Amino acid sequence: MASSMNFYKAIVVPSRSITDGRQPLVCVPLVGRDQAAVLGGLATIIAKRPDVIEWRIDYFSGIADTTQVVSLAQRIRDLAAGIPILLTRRSTREGGEPIALSEERVLALHEAIFASRAIDFVDYELSSDPRHFQQALTAAHAAGVQLIASFHDFQRTPSVEEIVAKFIAAEQAGADIAKVAVMPRTIDDVLTLLNATREGHRRSRLPIIGISMGAYGSLTRLFGWAFGSSMTFAVGDQASAPGQLPIGELRDALAIVQRALSGDPK
Amino acid sequence: MASSMNFYKAIVVPSRSITDGRQPLVCVPLVGRDQAAVLGGLATIIAKRPDVIEWRIDYFSGIADTTQVVSLAQRIRDLAAGIPILLTRRSTREGGEPIALSEERVLALHEAIFASRAIDFVDYELSSDPRHFQQALTAAHAAGVQLIASFHDFQRTPSVEEIVAKFIAAEQAGADIAKVAVMPRTIDDVLTLLNATREGHRRSRLPIIGISMGAYGSLTRLFGWAFGSSMTFAVGDQASAPGQLPIGELRDALAIVQRALSGDPK
Repeated sequence: MASSMNFYKAIVVPSRSITDGRQPLVCVPLVGRDQAAVLGGLATIIAKRPDVIEWRIDYFSGIADTTQVVSLAQRIRDLAAGIPILLTRRSTREGGEPIALSEERVLALHEAIFASRAIDFVDYELSSDPRHFQQALTAAHAAGVQLIASFHDFQRTPSVEEIVAKFIAAEQAGADIAKVAVMPRTIDDVLTLLNATREGHRRSRLPIIGISMGAYGSLTRLFGWAFGSSMTFAVGDQASAPGQLPIGELRDALAIVQRALSGDPK
Repeated sequence: MASSMNFYKAIVVPSRSITDGRQPLVCVPLVGRDQAAVLGGLATIIAKRPDVIEWRIDYFSGIADTTQVVSLAQRIRDLAAGIPILLTRRSTREGGEPIALSEERVLALHEAIFASRAIDFVDYELSSDPRHFQQALTAAHAAGVQLIASFHDFQRTPSVEEIVAKFIAAEQAGADIAKVAVMPRTIDDVLTLLNATREGHRRSRLPIIGISMGAYGSLTRLFGWAFGSSMTFAVGDQASAPGQLPIGELRDALAIVQRALSGDPK
């Protein structure tokens, strides 16, 4: 592993390491509303070689049809040809699309997808009912799926202490990875998120993901990994949150940053 | 002016604005040891179109020959064809090359160069004897030259408070621009410099330049401007400090950062 490894903690899937430790994992969301859009988006995304693909099932209109979802998850798994898959149902409370499922049905859907071995990671929100959170975690771990405990604030950036508390709460709740994405109102809020990411990296044993959203926050998508963030989200087909950069542009910048940090610019 | 203007304070030369407000000024050092090396380096640099050229006269072996220095300054002025020139004698105390001149002779050399109208900016160290500093400042202002009061620490990164105190001291001393360049030992030191740059931007009326040196610090050369730093130093021909990136690579990254900050990525 390169010396830059100590900038952040590696995310590993059981079968293999999915980072070379030189740059953060680049995750691209898949936000199609129907099967054709999901598969079309997937083809576009795969051509751009992300490190992880996030299937945002709250965008998928067929979410209530478990058989269809599981079947599509397996298609995605096959087509992705080894690229790890992250399954995310983002709640409307934290910036997701409205869905018609109760939380119990979401958890049942999770379990059906887990059983199909189609995914590697599942996102579940830290603000969920603790009973639901525990159920999601137990099911994920029983199936060898890693759980990303996430927290989003699309309105503001909490204090460093509040953000660090989220990373620590994720660890205490038994998650495998902790994610915080918050909205800056000023460039100071971007510094707050970077300071909190560094502090979270120091204080949590988990790999963490720290994101400041929007235009100003895009800085953290480019450089946050140097301060402890293990994964960055980019656009392969369509964005799922404000401030995501096109994957090609992000990779170009990451390569420059990586050479600079290694003291070996072109 | 673009909205990104408020990230940092513009540096202006009397005749014209030298920044479009969308990206920081990119300054490239000229470190030749003799006239041939200076002119050769200058040709290389000019082809890369920096915003400012810094002539590091402490590298120049002919520094004791005032006539030769003034004549070369005028050649540089003519060849640079409008690119503003920054004159810097870096002391050995702050990372420069040894020279045989007393401080009084340095100040006399300044005045001769100022009189030739060959330069726009002069760097003078904040840690200088206050009498010398005042003399440098008076001579610069009498000639319409802007003074950058600089502070360097090649060993460590002082605290946020200490760094901010340098920016404020530069303003109180009557300088036109305040520059701090410090060495990080950890990535936390890079955050310290960014936090101090933002705080210095808020608390000083001057344009400020905040730099973390070395490999880790190269991050600040790429995106310190978003936190208030008005100028970044890059390599056109040869580096003058550790962590400087090649100007082409820096410009590529600045363009990506600028599009990201404006919310208008490719």
